[in-house]
Amino acid sequence: MSDHYVHGYSPVEATRLSRQANILSEFIHSNAVFAPGDRIVEVGCGVGSQTVQLAARNPSAQIVGIDRSADSLEQARALVAGHGLNNVQFQQCDASVLPFEDGAFDGAFVCFVLEHLADPEGALRELRRVLKPGAKLHVFEGDHGATIAWPDDPDIHRLVRAATQYQATQGGNAEIGRALTPLLRAGGFHSIQVEPCVAYADLERPQWVEQFTRHTFIDMMKSLRERLAGSGLLDERASELGVAALERAALEGTFSYTFYRAIAFRW
Amino acid sequence: MSDHYVHGYSPVEATRLSRQANILSEFIHSNAVFAPGDRIVEVGCGVGSQTVQLAARNPSAQIVGIDRSADSLEQARALVAGHGLNNVQFQQCDASVLPFEDGAFDGAFVCFVLEHLADPEGALRELRRVLKPGAKLHVFEGDHGATIAWPDDPDIHRLVRAATQYQATQGGNAEIGRALTPLLRAGGFHSIQVEPCVAYADLERPQWVEQFTRHTFIDMMKSLRERLAGSGLLDERASELGVAALERAALEGTFSYTFYRAIAFRW
Repeated sequence: MSDHYVHGYSPVEATRLSRQANILSEFIHSNAVFAPGDRIVEVGCGVGSQTVQLAARNPSAQIVGIDRSADSLEQARALVAGHGLNNVQFQQCDASVLPFEDGAFDGAFVCFVLEHLADPEGALRELRRVLKPGAKLHVFEGDHGATIAWPDDPDIHRLVRAATQYQATQGGNAEIGRALTPLLRAGGFHSIQVEPCVAYADLERPQWVEQFTRHTFIDMMKSLRERLAGSGLLDERASELGVAALERAALEGTFSYTFYRAIAFRW
Repeated sequence: MSDHYVHGYSPVEATRLSRQANILSEFIHSNAVFAPGDRIVEVGCGVGSQTVQLAARNPSAQIVGIDRSADSLEQARALVAGHGLNNVQFQQCDASVLPFEDGAFDGAFVCFVLEHLADPEGALRELRRVLKPGAKLHVFEGDHGATIAWPDDPDIHRLVRAATQYQATQGGNAEIGRALTPLLRAGGFHSIQVEPCVAYADLERPQWVEQFTRHTFIDMMKSLRERLAGSGLLDERASELGVAALERAALEGTFSYTFYRAIAFRW
């Protein structure tokens, strides 16, 4: 369980995360607006793909990005510096034990993180502790269960199911999007507003085909091939068939994937 | 194949259709705006659930609703009269052979219809024939493949899969939403803009739980129980288990279903 982040820490994955952040930025950031002077914690900031957008869109807020991986934080620091942003600090720690006092933050931002945690409810409770009463929380997570392709193909279902199972063996949940409301309630938040956001690509949306279907979703599936084979969930040949079917949907058809965006407030 | 409409023609179904039209009206009608004086054909208007909204939102347009069922058109006439609308006419005919001359209409509206047709591409070509060059077409269809519940349950997947298979035995396609772009291209339309619309219900959206999860989706599944059993696809006990699992998601969890909305233009 030393590697909770199922997609790994390679330079290729960092590039994929950056592309994902760009094509999905309106979904993720359009309503992630905080007040000037607010202190915002970003849990699981990783290599900083979302941090740079959060910081640029909230220039008068102070962002504190936390992550378990020192290497990722190193990359995040370089990315933030490269963007000329000076309202971000980073701290290495685990989401389950935050090194901050109670009520230290005015808001929080959590993107593609809960899906990787063995105890997302516990992490939300710990996050709640370091938030002021009334603080606003933004969450953005995917759900593999709403992966829809045309032409449809059993090979796609096999691959996505194996990816979901693999994430479960790592303690995560690739179908967490649908569970945000009950999770946030259990974690001590109220006035929860969840909104599904569908990333949809077809022949009339070439940018989404390239940036989302190909370089976000298919690249993610490709990055899992060895791990799926190594764990006995799906052999490499079956993974390749799934990827080939996804490539056909990208080339001549349509592809949809649903994310869930939530805003909630600390009691 | 005498009964293409898999949900039947009962008064209960007419009530379900009316509720469905109300809760989904913003998705379906918010951008179905036509020019004053336009002549609009609504293919497969059924009992008029969408017709009354289309006519009320486009009071200076002339709507011609067509349907194969004389009984449904009788109900549609009564509904339109009850709403005090005087810009609607009806005509009984099949979508595959429209009794209109070439270029008779300035626009078209098609909602929950292509999913029931054995040859949706042929119907689109015939519709194209009766449209003027440049005419605007609105299409709205569902896709059972993006049915997402929490708590998830294999009984839900079994029920939805059986419903999809049953619709296929009737010549239809309950997963047609994802195919709109290729279908519309093949049917002779261009500048196709498809947008997924997710009907999402959770504890913080009680109106969606009642009007959509319960009285649109679950009621639709209930209406299919006898047919699923009669066709050997799913016995009544299994259908009941699926419905019970959906009721649990309505009561304590979340439910998502994706529709696809398209605007396209006639070459």
